[in-house]
Amino acid sequence: MRPAFLRTAVVIGCGVSGTSIALALTGAGVEVTLADQDPRAAAEAHRLGAGEVWTPTRAPADIVVVATPPSAVVDVLHTAQARGLGNVYTDVAGTKDIVAAEAELRGCDLKGYVPGHPLPARGVTGRSASRFVGRPWILCPYETTPRWALATVAELVTLCGAVRRDMTPHAHDRAMAAVGHLPYVVAAVLAGGLLDLDPELLPLAGEELAAAVRTVGAGPLVGGDLLAHNAGPVADQLDKAAAALAAVARTLHRGEDTVPVELGLLLELGERGRAALRAADEYRTAEDARPGDRM
Amino acid sequence: MRPAFLRTAVVIGCGVSGTSIALALTGAGVEVTLADQDPRAAAEAHRLGAGEVWTPTRAPADIVVVATPPSAVVDVLHTAQARGLGNVYTDVAGTKDIVAAEAELRGCDLKGYVPGHPLPARGVTGRSASRFVGRPWILCPYETTPRWALATVAELVTLCGAVRRDMTPHAHDRAMAAVGHLPYVVAAVLAGGLLDLDPELLPLAGEELAAAVRTVGAGPLVGGDLLAHNAGPVADQLDKAAAALAAVARTLHRGEDTVPVELGLLLELGERGRAALRAADEYRTAEDARPGDRM
Repeated sequence: MRPAFLRTAVVIGCGVSGTSIALALTGAGVEVTLADQDPRAAAEAHRLGAGEVWTPTRAPADIVVVATPPSAVVDVLHTAQARGLGNVYTDVAGTKDIVAAEAELRGCDLKGYVPGHPLPARGVTGRSASRFVGRPWILCPYETTPRWALATVAELVTLCGAVRRDMTPHAHDRAMAAVGHLPYVVAAVLAGGLLDLDPELLPLAGEELAAAVRTVGAGPLVGGDLLAHNAGPVADQLDKAAAALAAVARTLHRGEDTVPVELGLLLELGERGRAALRAADEYRTAEDARPGDRM
Repeated sequence: MRPAFLRTAVVIGCGVSGTSIALALTGAGVEVTLADQDPRAAAEAHRLGAGEVWTPTRAPADIVVVATPPSAVVDVLHTAQARGLGNVYTDVAGTKDIVAAEAELRGCDLKGYVPGHPLPARGVTGRSASRFVGRPWILCPYETTPRWALATVAELVTLCGAVRRDMTPHAHDRAMAAVGHLPYVVAAVLAGGLLDLDPELLPLAGEELAAAVRTVGAGPLVGGDLLAHNAGPVADQLDKAAAALAAVARTLHRGEDTVPVELGLLLELGERGRAALRAADEYRTAEDARPGDRM
């Protein structure tokens, strides 16, 4: 039986991620207080049962979760640490390299801060205690992060039903560019391209187009703020995708006898890639089905 | 009350499209016979209630539907016309420019042949009498197509519950490249690109990637044969998409202060494009809900 580090928590930022974490923690018996620059957001999270609204008289919490957009994380973290809101801090921003580096530059207390990024479960679109259940929750500890701080954040991950995974901020950002930001930007570009078409042609679209643009504008999954924070890795992925599309175009323009064979290979590789993604999902689902290791 | 031109039909090619059309026609009281180079396919369609298996002793049918892959259409059409299987002929291939031109070059009887392309309903993945209900069915008549031939094919469209739409083969192919073939190739390229990634990163993927690759390998929607037949228009669309992705990459690489604004505009245009597609769907659904014009 592991020791419980986490009895009290402050969640700053009552959007989808923050409220979902607060709901999970409250459900696990943690005493949660809620803060947001918009008092209505904190009050709404309170109404949903996510915890009490934060008041300045509180004692420092075991953990403070900064659940703001990426560009606000370091400011909020710095202020929260200066005011002594908690003993350990983490955030949930979808990019980590700039956030981790800025926290260092800004002079945040790195001993008490572990950058993090919980990945939402598929099909859970809104605020929910189960938003992160069974999903990877990436932690990017500094080399100097003490064990006690990491253990507290690890318990947060466990209490939310997620699976801890440690990565460097750089590796995290490159990975998210490949599996998250690239497909999102491609979807936006394809969807935006539809505005150039005769609207009379749109009813001819089928499953391919509907699926391709389905996540565009679908809530706060990926936004301009996040993409701007991960500009380099996203740009590299876009260059690679653009080159791959242009290569297919060249094959088609040449119009040689090998075109059907080359197209067949392209579609075959696509099917293999999709099968690999599906296998990763099945592996994850099998892992989820195991009894939890928390007692 | 319109005259009924269509009492008997032969469907050649008992794949998903052919069997679905045969099921719809049989359901509408048309006497359907089924042919396939693989006798098991015709027997299977017969078992599903799509009609009787074709035998050489039959009288010419009112209509012959050639439901083979695009590259086989003209051969099959020419043979069927030479054997006098029917009075009017159509096909269902997803590209029309090459098929229509080859039929002319090959010396097919153009008076009795109307190139066609029925678009499947979303969410209807297999053989079903309702596969084409409420969806556009594109006809590409020649300038010389007589009214009686067009009227027969139009009745086929109506009996399958679809909505006739006339286009030139060229306009059809360019439209399908934009709304169907482009997103399909992009999905295959994105999915194939996953094979270059560390497989340990695949579980980090979320909705964006799952949606982006969802139609890859999803049955016979789009295949290499079809793409090769529409090489020019598909290549043009791929060039345009590659240029658009490369432009976003350049913006991100430059890393100027305007990046968040430019990304915001990109995402905004994407949302507008998706909204336009959704509006086209809603329009279609509203049209579908009207009482049919067939008595």
